[in-house]
Amino acid sequence: MFAHNKRLQYTVRVSESNPGLANLMLEQFGGPQGELAAACRYFTQAIGEDDPGRKDMLFDIATEELSHLEVIGNIVVMLNKGAKGRLAEGVEEEGEIYRSITGAGNDSHLTQVLYGGGPPLTNSGGVPWSAAYIDTIGEPTADLRSNIAAEARAKIIYERLINLTTDPGVKEALGFLMTREVAHQKSFEKALYSITPNFPPGKLPGRPEFSSVYYDMSQGGPEVNGPWNSGPDWNVVSDREQQVAVGGGDGHASVNVTPDEDTTLAQMAARTASDPSKDPTTGAELGMGASPQAGSKPH
Amino acid sequence: MFAHNKRLQYTVRVSESNPGLANLMLEQFGGPQGELAAACRYFTQAIGEDDPGRKDMLFDIATEELSHLEVIGNIVVMLNKGAKGRLAEGVEEEGEIYRSITGAGNDSHLTQVLYGGGPPLTNSGGVPWSAAYIDTIGEPTADLRSNIAAEARAKIIYERLINLTTDPGVKEALGFLMTREVAHQKSFEKALYSITPNFPPGKLPGRPEFSSVYYDMSQGGPEVNGPWNSGPDWNVVSDREQQVAVGGGDGHASVNVTPDEDTTLAQMAARTASDPSKDPTTGAELGMGASPQAGSKPH
Amino acid sequence: MFAHNKRLQYTVRVSESNPGLANLMLEQFGGPQGELAAACRYFTQAIGEDDPGRKDMLFDIATEELSHLEVIGNIVVMLNKGAKGRLAEGVEEEGEIYRSITGAGNDSHLTQVLYGGGPPLTNSGGVPWSAAYIDTIGEPTADLRSNIAAEARAKIIYERLINLTTDPGVKEALGFLMTREVAHQKSFEKALYSITPNFPPGKLPGRPEFSSVYYDMSQGGPEVNGPWNSGPDWNVVSDREQQVAVGGGDGHASVNVTPDEDTTLAQMAARTASDPSKDPTTGAELGMGASPQAGSKPH
Amino acid sequence: MFAHNKRLQYTVRVSESNPGLANLMLEQFGGPQGELAAACRYFTQAIGEDDPGRKDMLFDIATEELSHLEVIGNIVVMLNKGAKGRLAEGVEEEGEIYRSITGAGNDSHLTQVLYGGGPPLTNSGGVPWSAAYIDTIGEPTADLRSNIAAEARAKIIYERLINLTTDPGVKEALGFLMTREVAHQKSFEKALYSITPNFPPGKLPGRPEFSSVYYDMSQGGPEVNGPWNSGPDWNVVSDREQQVAVGGGDGHASVNVTPDEDTTLAQMAARTASDPSKDPTTGAELGMGASPQAGSKPH
Amino acid sequence: MFAHNKRLQYTVRVSESNPGLANLMLEQFGGPQGELAAACRYFTQAIGEDDPGRKDMLFDIATEELSHLEVIGNIVVMLNKGAKGRLAEGVEEEGEIYRSITGAGNDSHLTQVLYGGGPPLTNSGGVPWSAAYIDTIGEPTADLRSNIAAEARAKIIYERLINLTTDPGVKEALGFLMTREVAHQKSFEKALYSITPNFPPGKLPGRPEFSSVYYDMSQGGPEVNGPWNSGPDWNVVSDREQQVAVGGGDGHASVNVTPDEDTTLAQMAARTASDPSKDPTTGAELGMGASPQAGSKPH
Amino acid sequence: MFAHNKRLQYTVRVSESNPGLANLMLEQFGGPQGELAAACRYFTQAIGEDDPGRKDMLFDIATEELSHLEVIGNIVVMLNKGAKGRLAEGVEEEGEIYRSITGAGNDSHLTQVLYGGGPPLTNSGGVPWSAAYIDTIGEPTADLRSNIAAEARAKIIYERLINLTTDPGVKEALGFLMTREVAHQKSFEKALYSITPNFPPGKLPGRPEFSSVYYDMSQGGPEVNGPWNSGPDWNVVSDREQQVAVGGGDGHASVNVTPDEDTTLAQMAARTASDPSKDPTTGAELGMGASPQAGSKPH
Repeated sequence: MFAHNKRLQYTVRVSESNPGLANLMLEQFGGPQGELAAACRYFTQAIGEDDPGRKDMLFDIATEELSHLEVIGNIVVMLNKGAKGRLAEGVEEEGEIYRSITGAGNDSHLTQVLYGGGPPLTNSGGVPWSAAYIDTIGEPTADLRSNIAAEARAKIIYERLINLTTDPGVKEALGFLMTREVAHQKSFEKALYSITPNFPPGKLPGRPEFSSVYYDMSQGGPEVNGPWNSGPDWNVVSDREQQVAVGGGDGHASVNVTPDEDTTLAQMAARTASDPSKDPTTGAELGMGASPQAGSKPH
Repeated sequence: MFAHNKRLQYTVRVSESNPGLANLMLEQFGGPQGELAAACRYFTQAIGEDDPGRKDMLFDIATEELSHLEVIGNIVVMLNKGAKGRLAEGVEEEGEIYRSITGAGNDSHLTQVLYGGGPPLTNSGGVPWSAAYIDTIGEPTADLRSNIAAEARAKIIYERLINLTTDPGVKEALGFLMTREVAHQKSFEKALYSITPNFPPGKLPGRPEFSSVYYDMSQGGPEVNGPWNSGPDWNVVSDREQQVAVGGGDGHASVNVTPDEDTTLAQMAARTASDPSKDPTTGAELGMGASPQAGSKPH
Repeated sequence: MFAHNKRLQYTVRVSESNPGLANLMLEQFGGPQGELAAACRYFTQAIGEDDPGRKDMLFDIATEELSHLEVIGNIVVMLNKGAKGRLAEGVEEEGEIYRSITGAGNDSHLTQVLYGGGPPLTNSGGVPWSAAYIDTIGEPTADLRSNIAAEARAKIIYERLINLTTDPGVKEALGFLMTREVAHQKSFEKALYSITPNFPPGKLPGRPEFSSVYYDMSQGGPEVNGPWNSGPDWNVVSDREQQVAVGGGDGHASVNVTPDEDTTLAQMAARTASDPSKDPTTGAELGMGASPQAGSKPH
Repeated sequence: MFAHNKRLQYTVRVSESNPGLANLMLEQFGGPQGELAAACRYFTQAIGEDDPGRKDMLFDIATEELSHLEVIGNIVVMLNKGAKGRLAEGVEEEGEIYRSITGAGNDSHLTQVLYGGGPPLTNSGGVPWSAAYIDTIGEPTADLRSNIAAEARAKIIYERLINLTTDPGVKEALGFLMTREVAHQKSFEKALYSITPNFPPGKLPGRPEFSSVYYDMSQGGPEVNGPWNSGPDWNVVSDREQQVAVGGGDGHASVNVTPDEDTTLAQMAARTASDPSKDPTTGAELGMGASPQAGSKPH
Repeated sequence: MFAHNKRLQYTVRVSESNPGLANLMLEQFGGPQGELAAACRYFTQAIGEDDPGRKDMLFDIATEELSHLEVIGNIVVMLNKGAKGRLAEGVEEEGEIYRSITGAGNDSHLTQVLYGGGPPLTNSGGVPWSAAYIDTIGEPTADLRSNIAAEARAKIIYERLINLTTDPGVKEALGFLMTREVAHQKSFEKALYSITPNFPPGKLPGRPEFSSVYYDMSQGGPEVNGPWNSGPDWNVVSDREQQVAVGGGDGHASVNVTPDEDTTLAQMAARTASDPSKDPTTGAELGMGASPQAGSKPH
Repeated sequence: MFAHNKRLQYTVRVSESNPGLANLMLEQFGGPQGELAAACRYFTQAIGEDDPGRKDMLFDIATEELSHLEVIGNIVVMLNKGAKGRLAEGVEEEGEIYRSITGAGNDSHLTQVLYGGGPPLTNSGGVPWSAAYIDTIGEPTADLRSNIAAEARAKIIYERLINLTTDPGVKEALGFLMTREVAHQKSFEKALYSITPNFPPGKLPGRPEFSSVYYDMSQGGPEVNGPWNSGPDWNVVSDREQQVAVGGGDGHASVNVTPDEDTTLAQMAARTASDPSKDPTTGAELGMGASPQAGSKPH
């Protein structure tokens, strides 16, 4: 069960209204790498998890991410504060509101006109948050790697937001939030490596004849090799002919069909067959003004 | 530039038509963890990458994933082959087609009615593929971690598909595809650790006072600690009061507003103020058939 | 800030595994009328709200909805428990897993294959949750009405789920959750009617000549009038001619364009003009095998 | 059946081209609170409705909303008129078109480049309209409340658009459209309260022990009570311990599993168990350049 | 302006309830090729169109498609009629409702549980309708081709639905709707070819050196040529080397950057450089239980 | 199988960084009419196609579209090159980065903050690419028409991008890409007309009594007739009464329900009946401050 404390995990002190900056901050509120995504990711994993240690950790971090969502949401609300009343009360001179809405830049017009200055669960481009952002699949050796990557991405987005902000209070709060992503990544790393073995993920082993092959599929320029495709563990296949039908066979797809299925397929094939021996007049030729008299002609 | 070879990277031999199984296979064709997601992920990273070694690797793997997309697509097409002509040619007895479409199970009806038995870029639930599945952000120390996680997830989904298939040709091809995800994960791991340092990701260091703190946010039951929150590196904060306003201050959000902004906000507040001292009759009370005569009454 | 208690707000006792029922329960986990939608709706309103009483109420209810999300999520997880290990460990006989996955019905195959038996933030059809479900616009006289309606909808979906469940523990927990929606609706009703006046919502008055008109736009059958279009307050307009251009003018749209704009528009009009005086041969006629010789002929 | 009259329900007179303003108007064309949403909402309810009076009303209002969609669409088209030919005919001086497209602000570039100046069914941020905006569930005591709320929201968005427009013809037409939302809300209110009782919505009564409880979930600051949580009808529960497991039991979730299920779950648990007694070296430590020699060490 | 007639364009006579069939019919109600898509497509084109003849035609057909949407919606409602009351009133014996909901097949459970038996604007897989289905771009020589194709697709989906239905009343109404798509396609064909020339679409001519080249990009198997790549108009390029950098140059992408930009790019490159000369220990190796002592070693 | 050549199909030479222009170019990278849509469209058709000639053609063109995706992606990357390092390295003076991000216009802020200057699979408004853009249905007489239309649309979007660009290298590359759409349209036209007959698409003939009727549904203004509704082939129906129930019957929808179903429907009707004879006090009246004492009153 959740409980709420009216105080924030981190005090938010914003210098002045700035709807354009507020819009960029939405990236960490309702954006793909933002705090709602983080909270939902860990919360749903926690519910589904059976391992007691991981379950506890996932609830700890999910709850903290919810608290971060509240912090970044308050930053958005404070940055929009000055603009909020303007459109609602309609008190300014002719054209002033339109200029202020259009001039703040980015997609801040959407926050004002559609959301009334409140914090919408969209990214900075106005795209509504989607659970399609969450890549949990219910297997810890995969999900923990997904969590590690998610924390790395969130850390970077905070870093970019810090770089483009000059408001010291905003910078400070963002610095706290960014640092917590680093701490969470460390916890998820520990949890992953506490499962042994954890690679390859899951249970089924790979087919050994394909697990150390590197197919050199991009050619025609200088090749810069590295440990990802060279050294004793790798078998590099560059010959184009050896990249095809690598398990044998003719490289084509086949299926056994029943005689009834075969009959129907033949009917469909006949009905939709293209006759490659004719050169038919087409709509494009009609459209060019080409003489359609030629009709269907052999070539 | 891409070139295409008419033969597949892996020969596909399907025993018999099975539209229900075809529908489940879509998970790796147009699903969130599928091959289109993989190909798009690495291809767009390759274009944006400046490091010559990583760029080459990303093009190599992107091109192979496109080739895998072709393999899994051919499995779908073969499994649907027998059903394909039936609806198009409409030759069966009354009601037979409806029964076969409904009886195959899963969401295979969608593949038949909307997509004509072809391979749609949807998951096994019929949800169209979305670029929202791709989490690339243009920073290699984050993107490589995302790639590692993506390969781990794809490996698991293949493992599940293998477990529920009995067709030996399908099992074999899926085994090849699953193994390649293991190989790709190994390459991305090597590429990540070839960047030193790569943790924390990005450039800005964290704030040291918050980078080794573990906030114990979920309480009220047995705590199972592990290396993710115990040991010399961690400072665990369990006291609820110390989890609030951790950087000092009153735990509230504030902003400086101009006098004009203040006036408008006051107007809006007055217009929308709720009066907590009255107990108004509500629509719900009207709806219950409660006497509305009471009107607005103090309490 | 949020805190988490390891115990649920309501104890969940499920009789036996039932993945098909689990799938239907997702409607209240990640569906449009479900608990995530409720929690996000009230939480974002709470952050943006300035009125102290409403802000407190919104945080109270948002936090409870998060706790309900946890309860319904646990119901999903318990109902999937038996199926969870089967696909992950792959231990059953040939074909058994496929039959169990396909036979559970609904879209439960998606929960198993893509989500590993965990609780995904999708509805019962597999559609990922979207913030497009949230209709908050930042004006309390509108948002409170939206909340009232949202609670009414959630109550009904719980009622339907109760009607189709026979598991007594599930029925009991759903009954608790359903009842809480009723209580929340009552609170939102009180909060709405504590704002006076609250109708029309917002600040601008309507244009009086149009605010009590009822346009009878659907005709040609028996008319059943009611208080929504009859009585002294309503002015019913049934004459089709009086439904057009109701504010005067010619009923057409116009704009003043500059001479330069006019020139360009004329160019575009000339380039794309259709000549209604000719009867051109078309692609459809070619496609029917009609003789194209006729070419463009006047009629 | 529908019929169309070439004249609009309200004459549209626009002073001059303004693509930036056109873009904001899209909010009521293809936005979540716009006229397409309204028309689709009432039209689908009308088809599904069996009550003759409500059915007629829903068709009346759906048809009017379609006519409003036409009015707002014409406003968009007129505001874009001057810009429409420019890009299509490409007649201006070098760089002029780019400047005009970029300079209009908002997301008007999308309307020009992708939609050729026509009226797209998107909101002002370019997000395509989605039926996910429609919350109809087929129960009139819920749907009518949803309609009331939808009209309130639409009224507010029109109010905001009026406040930011200075074009008198646009202001006048928007005033008409806004007023009609007020009239429609009145009709839906009458229709709701014509059903007795209509609260609680639906058929099942709530569990009385939970229907008048108010859980005070947000604490730690000044509490402002109001009629939504105080007075004789409410039982306020503030004690944290009494907010947990409110129906009794241990606050945990349980399910009975079969012995076979239990065996498989144990297998999965063993395979994915995390060992909390070790402190493993992690990828993050490798990434920091920390010495990996320490390996897996007890602590 | 629109007007509504209470009678349908085509009388709907359904033999008996069939929720599974109802679900499939949704494909033409809220599916990508369905009637809402058609109506929205032509209606928005009509508003934006300046050519008087085409504008009139587009309004004629848009209005008819709205009337078709009403017909297909009524088919859905009639097929769901019997099931509608069951879940709402909850009167059946224990477990009966669950069996009927699950047993109807397809995704009909969604129509019942979420939409109460009403006609939702989704496809037969439950995916909400999206304006992303509409491909109008505001240029008649493209839009008319899009309309021709859309009518062809809709015709086929109706054909498939007819093939799987045995209810004579449903078959008859679908036959009417299917035929009207044929008629509409004929009108759009005539409208397209009334614009001369209409190919290539738009205004800019192509670059002649590339407009009749056919790049043979797929090789390695039997080539079946046809009029799409052979005959006097086509210049087929099969030599792989001549398919690259076809306009000359080195086949690489370049841009001029300022010295400041160059400095920053160099910084970023240095920070994220991968060192291909080392073979670093990776997380995967740790995960396999491989000895991490080796550390970073040259190879 | 696919292979990759490190050189592009067309050399890209960009004069200088321009993030605003880069953002507009995304329309052809991840937009609905862009190259990913084209590649996915033809690739999935190719896999599902059985006709050897069409299959080969579809693979040829799909592969070329992938190569075009690479070209336009490189244009985006080059235009963003100068901005890429700035945010990542954070080296500029206070506030400079915010100004440059906000000032570039359009939605380029999203490319920078969320995607780090890489090429995201979104359109120019930031909306992620969706497979909902692809309208393939698995019937060649429909799909080829869809392809023809898709090429026409893509040609036009390139034309618009050319018109707003002044960079000669970008203009040249766009000219190549635009021309190839023309060539592809020609191929698809030839392929369509090689199937005889191809109209009406599919197999079922239309009902002759409805296939040449034109319903004049939009009236009340000047009618401009053209070959789409006049001439010997057309039967125009303008009489409103003859547009209704065109196949006979009463124009209403009906279904046979079982006695049990009837009973339940009657129960639901009674529970939700609206009483048109009363004028109930409503929530709106309460909200206006109207006296609620009046209660429910007859009128």
